[in-house]
Amino acid sequence: MSNIKVAIVGYGNLGKGTEAALSQASDMELVCVFTRRKPESIKTVTGVPVYSIDDMMGMRDKIDVIVLCGGSATDLPKQTPEMAKYFNVVDSFDTHAKIPEHFENTDKASKDAKKVSVISIGWDPGLFSLNRLIGEAVLPNGNAYTFWGKGISQGHSDAIRRIDGVKDARQYTVPVEEALNSVRNGENPTLSVRQKHIRECFVVAEDGADKALIEKTIKEMPNYFADYDTTVNFISEEELLKNHASMPHGGSVIRSGNTGENKHIIEFSLKLDSNPEFTSSVLVAYARAAYRLYQKGDFGCKTIFDIPPAYLHPESPETLREKLL
Amino acid sequence: MSNIKVAIVGYGNLGKGTEAALSQASDMELVCVFTRRKPESIKTVTGVPVYSIDDMMGMRDKIDVIVLCGGSATDLPKQTPEMAKYFNVVDSFDTHAKIPEHFENTDKASKDAKKVSVISIGWDPGLFSLNRLIGEAVLPNGNAYTFWGKGISQGHSDAIRRIDGVKDARQYTVPVEEALNSVRNGENPTLSVRQKHIRECFVVAEDGADKALIEKTIKEMPNYFADYDTTVNFISEEELLKNHASMPHGGSVIRSGNTGENKHIIEFSLKLDSNPEFTSSVLVAYARAAYRLYQKGDFGCKTIFDIPPAYLHPESPETLREKLL
Repeated sequence: MSNIKVAIVGYGNLGKGTEAALSQASDMELVCVFTRRKPESIKTVTGVPVYSIDDMMGMRDKIDVIVLCGGSATDLPKQTPEMAKYFNVVDSFDTHAKIPEHFENTDKASKDAKKVSVISIGWDPGLFSLNRLIGEAVLPNGNAYTFWGKGISQGHSDAIRRIDGVKDARQYTVPVEEALNSVRNGENPTLSVRQKHIRECFVVAEDGADKALIEKTIKEMPNYFADYDTTVNFISEEELLKNHASMPHGGSVIRSGNTGENKHIIEFSLKLDSNPEFTSSVLVAYARAAYRLYQKGDFGCKTIFDIPPAYLHPESPETLREKLL
Repeated sequence: MSNIKVAIVGYGNLGKGTEAALSQASDMELVCVFTRRKPESIKTVTGVPVYSIDDMMGMRDKIDVIVLCGGSATDLPKQTPEMAKYFNVVDSFDTHAKIPEHFENTDKASKDAKKVSVISIGWDPGLFSLNRLIGEAVLPNGNAYTFWGKGISQGHSDAIRRIDGVKDARQYTVPVEEALNSVRNGENPTLSVRQKHIRECFVVAEDGADKALIEKTIKEMPNYFADYDTTVNFISEEELLKNHASMPHGGSVIRSGNTGENKHIIEFSLKLDSNPEFTSSVLVAYARAAYRLYQKGDFGCKTIFDIPPAYLHPESPETLREKLL
């Protein structure tokens, strides 16, 4: 059997992570990277060629599936439905509230083109969603909890960076240990936003900036920080680059339910050194599934809820039953 | 939409658990229980009627799916393929080494009958298998670990009960904390059987029995105990019934892998007050899936690897995307 031929669109952290994940996939190969930047300005880690995004159409018969590595704010809402007209695609669209709309747009494009698209893949949305669903289906009488972190929140870090006088910043989302333990003990607590997570900020201020004002602005920022216990630490740029350069993340999805008198706890947890590299690894497994669904003629848009798990793994169903069941 | 009509075959712990789980399922109803015992000797918790297993055929058009609640040693290898000729069926066949053979037998019966069977459902095999597969698919460069417990092993308890002079016994499988922590820390240890689990035995000896000999016999029993650190505690029958009557279990499936320089840990863990009630809850979710696959005309034998997760949940795909993704 020939390898599944993959192309990456966008060569940021997610694109590089996808390149790395593909090098571990025995049955897939990376054909090329497409970019909106000047192709000659990019050198890939593995040396695969880089082409302009304008040249994609000419490559249609050389590519089985495309991994879209753009952002959810502006790139994916346009790119995914557009490219779904011509390619099998996978994306990591993570604006939860807009998933239904994104699904509808992409589903129509894929069905018209007799292609497969898989959206909102990664860990949340993604593997966490899968575990929320399984928890509810298996223990309908119960409570669901999602904790995030400890990890860098890109959105919150960006929000701090936009404040006057801030040169750079990193924000860690940290689950509250007592809350986690209470849930794990089956106490089924009702938890406010503040009781679940702490926000830890590391900020590099510009010379002469009013640090007290920056701290106040952060702590009172609606939606992002006002509802949380937030700590603000001012550090040097050198320290930020030295101690806060990596992108760890993780968290837990916990279902606490009961059957009659008996309590049961289901927990799915992740501890990730690199959020983008892990997300990319999930994307690559679902790119494999997308192509297999395409081969079966099961066209249209799918989410993690719609895909038989066996499609994620390179081995045959027989081998999976023998080795992993 | 009308409810999914379910029948239970076998009214032991698993059958009772299935009855309880069905009472929590908004879209399913229990029609009856079938038994090999005298039907009049059984009174169900919810009051549903009990019929002889010989009367199943006459009920064919009243039942959408059957949950088989017999044992894996002798019941299911015969029952599942036989009943798959006439019904949609779900079982919890858990003899790992014989799953391929059980699959082949059942698959043929279901395909010939244009029905659906789902085998080896529960938590191991079952949800643990699912997580082993996902872990390998997402992080191909890594190590897999399964820890069981703390929980009662029925097979090991039975093995002790067969020893001369033993009146009753319970055996707990206990994961070794240091091993678990090492795996969770991403140390990727190579662990022997002895390093992963401890076996704790609680034994009621008959009057005048040679306790030293019983202890020696347990500790030296090949396959079951010889390769483990085993502790044997002799207790009174009263204490056994008081403190060791419940059937807790659980465990963890951990994937420890890396992408380049970065380490990632995926952990799925269960903490169950009642092993049979939880297993039954999983069976009921997959009974729902079995009937939906049947409605779609996707006939044959399936395992947890083959089933789109959305099929487990009573809500529509639209609602699932909106609420859980």
